[in-house]
Amino acid sequence: MFRRLYSTAAHPARFQLPQTIRQLLSSNGQENTTASVTGWIKSIRKQKNITFAVVSDGTTAEGLQAVVLKKQGTSPELLKRLTNGAAVRLTGNLIKSPGSGQDWELVIQEGDTNAIEVLGDCDVDTYPIQKKTLSTEYLRDNAYLRARTGQIAAMLRLRDHIFHNLSRSFESQGFTYTHTPIITGNDCEGAGEAFRIAPLQPNADANPNTTPLEFFSRPAYLTVSHQLHLESLTTALSRVYTLSPCFRAERSMTGRHLAEFWMLEAEWNLATRFDSIEEICVFVEGVIRRSIDPNSDDIIKLWEEKDGGKGLESEDYKTFRAAFDSEKPWKRMTYTEAIELLHAEYAQGHKFEFKPVWGESLSSEHERWLAEVHVGGPVFVTNYPIGLKPFYMRVNEDGKTVACFDLLVPRAGELVGGSVREERWDVLTTRMREFALLPSSEGAEQQSEGAVEGERSTSGSTYQWYADLRRYGGAPHGGFGLGFERLVSWVGGIDNVRECIGMPRWTGRMIM
Amino acid sequence: MFRRLYSTAAHPARFQLPQTIRQLLSSNGQENTTASVTGWIKSIRKQKNITFAVVSDGTTAEGLQAVVLKKQGTSPELLKRLTNGAAVRLTGNLIKSPGSGQDWELVIQEGDTNAIEVLGDCDVDTYPIQKKTLSTEYLRDNAYLRARTGQIAAMLRLRDHIFHNLSRSFESQGFTYTHTPIITGNDCEGAGEAFRIAPLQPNADANPNTTPLEFFSRPAYLTVSHQLHLESLTTALSRVYTLSPCFRAERSMTGRHLAEFWMLEAEWNLATRFDSIEEICVFVEGVIRRSIDPNSDDIIKLWEEKDGGKGLESEDYKTFRAAFDSEKPWKRMTYTEAIELLHAEYAQGHKFEFKPVWGESLSSEHERWLAEVHVGGPVFVTNYPIGLKPFYMRVNEDGKTVACFDLLVPRAGELVGGSVREERWDVLTTRMREFALLPSSEGAEQQSEGAVEGERSTSGSTYQWYADLRRYGGAPHGGFGLGFERLVSWVGGIDNVRECIGMPRWTGRMIM
Repeated sequence: MFRRLYSTAAHPARFQLPQTIRQLLSSNGQENTTASVTGWIKSIRKQKNITFAVVSDGTTAEGLQAVVLKKQGTSPELLKRLTNGAAVRLTGNLIKSPGSGQDWELVIQEGDTNAIEVLGDCDVDTYPIQKKTLSTEYLRDNAYLRARTGQIAAMLRLRDHIFHNLSRSFESQGFTYTHTPIITGNDCEGAGEAFRIAPLQPNADANPNTTPLEFFSRPAYLTVSHQLHLESLTTALSRVYTLSPCFRAERSMTGRHLAEFWMLEAEWNLATRFDSIEEICVFVEGVIRRSIDPNSDDIIKLWEEKDGGKGLESEDYKTFRAAFDSEKPWKRMTYTEAIELLHAEYAQGHKFEFKPVWGESLSSEHERWLAEVHVGGPVFVTNYPIGLKPFYMRVNEDGKTVACFDLLVPRAGELVGGSVREERWDVLTTRMREFALLPSSEGAEQQSEGAVEGERSTSGSTYQWYADLRRYGGAPHGGFGLGFERLVSWVGGIDNVRECIGMPRWTGRMIM
Repeated sequence: MFRRLYSTAAHPARFQLPQTIRQLLSSNGQENTTASVTGWIKSIRKQKNITFAVVSDGTTAEGLQAVVLKKQGTSPELLKRLTNGAAVRLTGNLIKSPGSGQDWELVIQEGDTNAIEVLGDCDVDTYPIQKKTLSTEYLRDNAYLRARTGQIAAMLRLRDHIFHNLSRSFESQGFTYTHTPIITGNDCEGAGEAFRIAPLQPNADANPNTTPLEFFSRPAYLTVSHQLHLESLTTALSRVYTLSPCFRAERSMTGRHLAEFWMLEAEWNLATRFDSIEEICVFVEGVIRRSIDPNSDDIIKLWEEKDGGKGLESEDYKTFRAAFDSEKPWKRMTYTEAIELLHAEYAQGHKFEFKPVWGESLSSEHERWLAEVHVGGPVFVTNYPIGLKPFYMRVNEDGKTVACFDLLVPRAGELVGGSVREERWDVLTTRMREFALLPSSEGAEQQSEGAVEGERSTSGSTYQWYADLRRYGGAPHGGFGLGFERLVSWVGGIDNVRECIGMPRWTGRMIM
């Protein structure tokens, strides 16, 4: 069989698997060619002389309709095994479909040798993915098979497409794709919400005085962000990005939080020095716009099936489309302007649960009002008060705000956060001492003096290395982090991030 | 500044950062055009009327030579700040270099406004990356800056290039790039070497009877492999792959093991059914060959600097080149053949530490002899004894071996492992019971009966879902896992995997 499919004389670098359904349908194949497809039966209708089956291999939103014509010599046993969920390989003629709803169909002569192969039977009575509508909660319980549903499969393909588009975009901008550590000694950024790696169990043979209980000789955590490590790489490669898992041990049960999520993070040396946060905003907008094709089959399918099939007529959909169809840059406003707008709205009687106050965080209801009601689309809110943001963001000239932004989008809320990073050694180290990330002034000096003796990063402060990046040719730079599941949620019209990743993890739940 | 660089009238999707040095040098720029480069000074030589500086932004192996011509009106202060390690932006004329060793150079008139900007000074006396040769161990201690060295930067770019090539290769073969969980309830595959997430600390307010100590309600581990989860996605999307972190709490100190490493894993429905392991071998060979360009600057640079500058003349280099230059498929042999060869070698007096015995693992010395001495290149060793391999590999007709392979390569050892997965429900569940991954026969039946009631994966066996994939249209499939750092080690001629990732983690060591 193997030799039949592949010429062994071909160059070993040129080996190709047979076409998927997507490849077959997009290859402008000629009518009436013989084609084989491998996939699962999504629905089947058996009539006396003809059987209709939709077969999907998961590479397209709609699958392919197969028409099986009755012929003498067919095994009734074989026909019985063609059920919903069965894995089959069908070989027939690909023709332009006379029916509506699809362009192509595969016509199979039932009795032909090898025309119909059942690769895997489906125990149809207990098959969890029945044709009826299945609840979200039921599918979460059956996570191991839920990618067989059209919605989850479309979401998984959407993740793939977005990542490939992002990759190409970053590549064209001169970025290097990098990997930074998952296990780290840093725990400060997670505000006490970092998962900790369990210390080792002492065993009978171990000498408790010499055998360390920590695998890495010190407490280890799962990273909450790759930013600090990316900054280290930026100081050598100029432009870096990663798409990598991040972890937060938050007990949040909202539709926007996962304990394990994927974050797109990028850092680069700014072309515009530190004039403004605008270079980062315009870059982020460009990257997102280029990564999303709102006309892709999968995005259309995801919206189409929303709201009982009326998703494409919804206001939410129109708002989403407008963000990508319009050539007008997305809205920018400062935090101070945002507070003023919220104030005015509050004064006019809008019942916010929290009164908007300068210097306090925007609550989720404030963010939603700004993006969904006031702007009706994505909005970059910039220059937040210094007290609300982490130590690494660059302090603006006013001394009261930092050069940062949150990108708020309708429904998904905060999609991206970014900032210019503080490149001034003196300003940064002062702030780090305020956050107790560096020892007091004297200790820091001592640490600096010992710099060339090596082991600097393992001794003294865990964060000394971060400050020291500024001592050795630290160029002005900035970056951002984008929640990948939130992006999928926004552009796919998916209500909960738990349906934006194959096997979600959140507090109390870890299936598979 | 921002407006000077970018027209605000452009479509927001078309924003571009300025060219990197790589982009500048590969854009076939015309001679005598004005160009700006931003990067770090790698070396500098100041003469009376002229200064030579090599500037690198980390995007190329060699950087760009800048020639600064003396002019009236220069600030001596500015000149003093041009040191090794300083971040600078230089603007000048790009011309064909009259000197040897580079194609282009940037000629700068010292006194021109903005011709020389120092973006970040370097404290040159304590700068850890001095021009002299730095030991590997010293650079590990200074991991936060080691990407400034030519070798580590080349390795990081190599990772990026390999991944982009892999991505394109998988995309063209109809695969979907997916993300599977890092945190998992499975701990069996790691043979007791999985990292465990620490249970929560009970706090004073918590009711110990109702507040679970486990964040996910049950013990959680860091995954040692994504294979089982990828198999779940294969059963819907047909072909999937991931490049994702994996973790092993091994106390290994060899140059081939890390506690945190990246693994390329792929699974797909086999086109050749289950005739042989050959489809997987030929696919793996094709994917690796397409992902490596042995003529890339970075690979050349890495080998060039090996063995005191004689790496390109080494036997190791010739062996590596031959694997990619030759059109002959890489060698295949069965485990049984391998044992016979080792036997013969042993009989002839080769002093292996371990005698080769059928049914026992190939030791590292055996693997090295096969790849380095006997074959002199990569070799697929196939069909290992059933007792040596995990439960999920397909049992061959002889009942004694499984349809699997290890790809052994010179120096890096086992680079890839893969197999046809057992698709037969009865064979698989029998084996899983042997491994105590499913309850006894009766329990399993009960579990199966309760299948449609949901929550199957959280109750009963952790692995029930894996077996059940075979009940619902499980098609014959297979896959492999490739150690990404080992691939980088092999093709880059890098001796230790700790130099094949930016910030390595191994037992006892976690810097940054």
